[in-house]
Amino acid sequence: MDKAMARLDSLVKPPGSLGKLEIIAMRLAGISGQMYYDASKRCVIIMAADNGVVDEGVSSAPQSVTLMQTINFTKSITGVAALAKQFGTDLIVIDVGVNGDINHPAIKDRKIRKGTWNIAKRAAMSRDEAVQAVLVGAQTSVDAAKAGYRLIGAGEMGIGNTTTSAAVLCAMIGIEPEQAAGKGAGLTEEAYHRKIDVIRTALAQLAPDPADPLDVLAKVGGFDIAAMAGVFLGAAYMGVPVVIDGFISMAAALAAVRMNPLAREYMFASHASFEQGYKHAARAVGVEPCLHLDMRLGEGSGCPIMFAVIDAACAVMRDMGTFEQANIGDEYLEVVKDADFHIRRL
Amino acid sequence: MDKAMARLDSLVKPPGSLGKLEIIAMRLAGISGQMYYDASKRCVIIMAADNGVVDEGVSSAPQSVTLMQTINFTKSITGVAALAKQFGTDLIVIDVGVNGDINHPAIKDRKIRKGTWNIAKRAAMSRDEAVQAVLVGAQTSVDAAKAGYRLIGAGEMGIGNTTTSAAVLCAMIGIEPEQAAGKGAGLTEEAYHRKIDVIRTALAQLAPDPADPLDVLAKVGGFDIAAMAGVFLGAAYMGVPVVIDGFISMAAALAAVRMNPLAREYMFASHASFEQGYKHAARAVGVEPCLHLDMRLGEGSGCPIMFAVIDAACAVMRDMGTFEQANIGDEYLEVVKDADFHIRRL
Repeated sequence: MDKAMARLDSLVKPPGSLGKLEIIAMRLAGISGQMYYDASKRCVIIMAADNGVVDEGVSSAPQSVTLMQTINFTKSITGVAALAKQFGTDLIVIDVGVNGDINHPAIKDRKIRKGTWNIAKRAAMSRDEAVQAVLVGAQTSVDAAKAGYRLIGAGEMGIGNTTTSAAVLCAMIGIEPEQAAGKGAGLTEEAYHRKIDVIRTALAQLAPDPADPLDVLAKVGGFDIAAMAGVFLGAAYMGVPVVIDGFISMAAALAAVRMNPLAREYMFASHASFEQGYKHAARAVGVEPCLHLDMRLGEGSGCPIMFAVIDAACAVMRDMGTFEQANIGDEYLEVVKDADFHIRRL
Repeated sequence: MDKAMARLDSLVKPPGSLGKLEIIAMRLAGISGQMYYDASKRCVIIMAADNGVVDEGVSSAPQSVTLMQTINFTKSITGVAALAKQFGTDLIVIDVGVNGDINHPAIKDRKIRKGTWNIAKRAAMSRDEAVQAVLVGAQTSVDAAKAGYRLIGAGEMGIGNTTTSAAVLCAMIGIEPEQAAGKGAGLTEEAYHRKIDVIRTALAQLAPDPADPLDVLAKVGGFDIAAMAGVFLGAAYMGVPVVIDGFISMAAALAAVRMNPLAREYMFASHASFEQGYKHAARAVGVEPCLHLDMRLGEGSGCPIMFAVIDAACAVMRDMGTFEQANIGDEYLEVVKDADFHIRRL
């Protein structure tokens, strides 16, 4: 990373003036051990699963949408599919717990169960099932890395999962349901209050242990979130940079960081979700998004756009000339050497 | 735009859930009169000029850097050149007032004078010269549109132009130099205070008229800023969407909007510059950036990255399927129809 920063400082621009692009380029060098990173083979991994909590009426869409959209990913008509196509990104679709029978060659069957239990009544899953879901995600990243993917995004499909994500967030960092829960894809005021009540009830009855991420995932999480946490861990294990999408993806990233803090070093936040819990989650993970698009779709839809920003960072490192090549010499370099660059790492 | 929003609402996602991407797609439809926008032929116009105010020691780089970098744009080694290459963008380099003789086939000679006067001593230029500079910019956009460019970015090269931009901003919206001026490419604390003093002196002595944008540009602006204001006006005149880069580009956008408020309808903000004056300028123009990258390079370097975000908006409009194609029917649509979507236009 020091060598990468030295090269960045030799390029024909005021030191640090490309901001986060320079930080990204430096981090990619740290992750890969290479000065120039080729992120052209990339994918978004989509973990699809159902959540029993939808029985409480906390979602604007019926549960059947999870199944339909999981199939629609393979037809390239969803939001993430359109964006993936635009930015040269493959989709890897995993059924880790959809409530329905899927027999589709383009959807990997890693189903643990046809949806979790309703967290308003009982734990979403057993601890063993939580471990299983995390391992599904980790193995998917390992397989992706072995298949040559050099950049991974973590997305999801699971009606009801803004409720479970908010519950995971409350359990892990101790904020109130009102701070963690938003209106998801579009809730009525009444359903929003129901959502907050459900989260409060689940936390009170199940008492997930904040110090035990697997306990939190098992009691108030979902197969989708647990598997995404595994995607982050698997990517870190294989040394592949991994992009966080929105709110649900960020909750999963937090679970991953709580299981292994080093996982953060491989993570890149994409966009600041419109969901109000996002900023709390991002702060807890310790990352800052590059895109402010007011998006709240999920699916991993922010990842392909962030891949373009990462492409930008790679292009800067690879294609800019040095001061020497630019015929800008000692006079300028003397000046910048003396200047006040404490702002560069902000 | 209504038809565009109707199509966006028919796509398989909660209405409004793609946030600013939907707003961009809708605005492109309004600008072009077409549902599907093809932004693949695009350019960044770079206005290069020198600023007499550098005599006051308000810049970290010597004036000669303007000339060198103007030539370096043609060698594809600058920041904006690396990013333009990555995102399929051409550069159009205009010498509107560089202090030096340039004879280069790839640099258009529209030189008004070899740099402005020092605003600490006298007006930067005459009113006639300001008009001339605006017309250089407008004509450049008109020529670009006639050459088939469907997306334009407005960039610049001009050592000292964060000082003139800050002065323009103070004159136009009445904020203090301390709020408008930042450390540019990297100033010492001492030079930063000098910069603020110079702006204060210039405003006091020259008394630019806030109600007369050409008076402001002539007295405390620069050939670069005035020509960029013309780029915005010319793009609007030709019905071509135009992307604002960072602080200097935003000051020019403000001058353009003050000359013709309709120009704003064609503008898209790219990134939130690290320069502290940026947010005041953006608010005055009435635009919100999509990228938060802590960049402070200038050159138009934020524009090609924003072009990728605009590509994303076009891809959503073009490639996503409808609810009907997605086999998601009345049950879901009934629910979303009733939901609370007052947040969509935020």
